[in-house]
Amino acid sequence: MSATSFAVTPEPPYYAVVFSSQRIAEDRGYAAVADRMVELAAKVPGFVGIESARGTDRFGITVSYWRDLEAVERWRTDIEHLAAQRRGRNEWYERFELRIAKVERASFGPA
Amino acid sequence: MSATSFAVTPEPPYYAVVFSSQRIAEDRGYAAVADRMVELAAKVPGFVGIESARGTDRFGITVSYWRDLEAVERWRTDIEHLAAQRRGRNEWYERFELRIAKVERASFGPA
Repeated sequence: MSATSFAVTPEPPYYAVVFSSQRIAEDRGYAAVADRMVELAAKVPGFVGIESARGTDRFGITVSYWRDLEAVERWRTDIEHLAAQRRGRNEWYERFELRIAKVERASFGPA
Repeated sequence: MSATSFAVTPEPPYYAVVFSSQRIAEDRGYAAVADRMVELAAKVPGFVGIESARGTDRFGITVSYWRDLEAVERWRTDIEHLAAQRRGRNEWYERFELRIAKVERASFGPA
């Protein structure tokens, strides 16, 4: 499953988790775990979709979409995800930001 | 001003505008207008910050942050921005998604 495509989301409201990060230059096992996290997130009840982009400067944004806060919380506290979060802090990111936001309006185009 | 760095945001709540897009291969004046839009957004009262990433597959995510919905609306209806939105629909994007979301929680790391 790839994260670099459009998420199909329901009518608002639902939740978005916006994760911005600056990667270090070395992989250190990151790519494999990132793929695994997309797979894993998709199995969490309440998962809606995920989108991700990272430039050649290694600054990236991943947005995952969730039915409600309970689904966000299930994902945040998933045991395998928690282990990946620890590796992220210690090994993969120079810096990151995480924001949890309630989507109120959405539109699509061209139209 | 570059959008490919971390936004400094206040304590929630505030608003995030998440814009996901698939660019076509040709530039068609996009890069210059994109830079100009970042400059212009930064002058709108209630602007908080902006972050952007686009991969080599041309799928990109830009998240701009705003103090409140009134600020989002000022930006959405800015006359020069409206002209850029038209060009986006007609010339620059295969597809895009726009979501307006209220940030309820935020955290930063490593920490």
